[in-house]
Order: sequence, then C-alpha cells, then structure tokens
Amino acid sequence: MPNLSVALMHYPVVNKADDTIASAVTNLDLHDISRAAKTYGVNRFFVVTPLVDQQTLVERIVSHWMDGAGARYNPKRREAMALIRIAGAFEDVLDSVRAEDGGEPKTVVTSAKAGKQTTRFGKMRSLLEEGTPFVLVFGTAWGLTEPFIAKADYILEPITGASEYNHLSVRSAAAIIFDRLLGRTG
Amino acid sequence: MPNLSVALMHYPVVNKADDTIASAVTNLDLHDISRAAKTYGVNRFFVVTPLVDQQTLVERIVSHWMDGAGARYNPKRREAMALIRIAGAFEDVLDSVRAEDGGEPKTVVTSAKAGKQTTRFGKMRSLLEEGTPFVLVFGTAWGLTEPFIAKADYILEPITGASEYNHLSVRSAAAIIFDRLLGRTG
Repeated sequence: MPNLSVALMHYPVVNKADDTIASAVTNLDLHDISRAAKTYGVNRFFVVTPLVDQQTLVERIVSHWMDGAGARYNPKRREAMALIRIAGAFEDVLDSVRAEDGGEPKTVVTSAKAGKQTTRFGKMRSLLEEGTPFVLVFGTAWGLTEPFIAKADYILEPITGASEYNHLSVRSAAAIIFDRLLGRTG
Repeated sequence: MPNLSVALMHYPVVNKADDTIASAVTNLDLHDISRAAKTYGVNRFFVVTPLVDQQTLVERIVSHWMDGAGARYNPKRREAMALIRIAGAFEDVLDSVRAEDGGEPKTVVTSAKAGKQTTRFGKMRSLLEEGTPFVLVFGTAWGLTEPFIAKADYILEPITGASEYNHLSVRSAAAIIFDRLLGRTG
C-alpha cells in the first residue's frame, strides 16, 4: 500500500522574475487538492507557509468546513478537508511524517521544467508500492526554488500532454499526478 | 488525431436538492480548464450559460487575459484563454462544432454517479482516434440533469481513485479525463 503525503509549498517558491518569495494561499487549492487527495487515498495534505496570517486564513477555511456551516451543508467536503495540516516549514512536514508514519520519509518534487534527472511515473508508482513513507511536493506561484529541488530524493518527470504547451495549474497537476501514481489501472 | 471540444455546462444542472438550476460561473474553472485543454490539444472550450450577466462576466475575464493587463503579464495564459467560447445553450455548441469541424458531432457526458451503461476510458480513447468530432461535456454544481445525460451519445465511466470517496472538483475531473483520453502513453 502506498504511504504518501502531499505538501503544497508557499515558501520557498519563485515569482515570475525568479525571486524567492512566500506566496499567498489560494482557497480553491485547499478544496481541490484535499478532494483529490481523499479520492486517491493520500494520507495527509500539508499546507506549508511561514506566514502567520496565511496560517490563520487556512485554519479559518478548514474550520468552516470541519465544524462550521460548511460541515452541515456538505459533509463530503469535511472528509476531504480533514486531511489538511498546517506547517510552517518543510522540516515540520518531515517531522510529522516521521512521528505518524514511522521511518525516514523520501521526498519527491514536481517540476514543469524539463532537463533534469527525473524519475518516470511508472518507476515512482513501483517505489510507492514498496510502502516507504513518501512526501510528494508541489510548488505554488512559479514553482519551487532550485535549491529546494536539488535537496529532494526524486524529481518526478514533467506531465506531457498532447502539445508543447505545459502550463497546468497546481490543482490540475496534482489531480493528474495522483491519478498516474495512485489510480486504479486496467 | 482526436477532434475534441469541451463544454462546461452551467445549465441545465442540478443543485444539492436535485432541482434544475443555472449555476454561477467560477473564475478558476475558466483558468484551470482552458490551461488543461491547451495542454492536451483540445480544440475549443465552450462555457455554456443562458444568463446574460454570466456571459458578460466570462467575456470580461477572458478579455482581461486576451487583450488587457493579463495578456502582457502572462502571455501563456492568453494562449489558453483563446480556446474559450461563450454559448447560450448546448445546441449552439453543436452548431459551432458542425460549422468549424464539419460532420455531426458526438456527445460524451461525464458523471460521477455509477450504475449507468458507461463507456470505458480505453474505448473512448479509441473512438476519439477515429477523428469524428466529439464534444466532452462537464456539469457544474451537483452535475448534469438526468434528461441531458439521457440524450448523450456516450456516458464516460466515472473516475475511480484508490478509495470509495469520489468527489473531485470539475477542474480536477477535467484534468484527469483529458490525461486519460488524450495524454501520451508509455
């Protein structure tokens, strides 16, 4: 059984000019990625931001759907949102996975940029089936910083569609990657 | 070569109580589905709503990214948004496909509900490769109405993840379905 958690990084990521920034949290990232994570059996969905006001925003949104009016209106959304954890830094994600899943987690980053030594989807699917805890990391804004990518255990190959255009939202990319790594085949 | 257009229906769809409604347009549906459509070589992305104020909203959003400040800030978004067409009713979508692609389009609807006579992803992929114009239809809100579904030529099998939970956003479902029907394999 795969033992996969997901981290959505709002820092350290780059902007259009390749400066390192902390990005703002997008409400629909929380909804879409938690729903897809729940559908594909992901353990936990870490929303990573060092900004306290952004952490508070995430807490408020999650609380609305977990305990507030949203929970009564849409109990299915509650099940998905229950996967969300707030983390101030990626090291906190790793500590949490170590504590809850046991063992040293491996990290796999996603990047739309080609040209690096990447791991194919089929190979990553096999690695996940071995049961080692893995953290699959997505960047927001214009993507994860190069130093962050360089420290990962694996870089997943980019998604190729049917054209040279490759500018999916992180929400779409996460859905496709979950399906390729965890979806039922045949 | 597949000859596929996509329609995102805001009417006729159902709400939680199964009443037929016209839903509001969601800004990020336009962004995410147009970007995924462009990535996977979809011909056109029809946003279908009979509500004139909602049509105006779509026009404003698309115009911002096609001609306004958004076009200068992010030319890649412009390429995706260029696929968007506004339609008042599904019949207008079919007329447009007849006029632009030639031939009588087939319609394939998506539904998260199991239990109907559905077409498998592999079979639909083969049908698309024959080159007949197809329109792939997604519902917003709680999904397409039963009479609309009953009129379609094909109902696509539901997406199965790795759990019994199956409540993806339409943005995530569209991304996964494009990947399954149009993505590069192997």
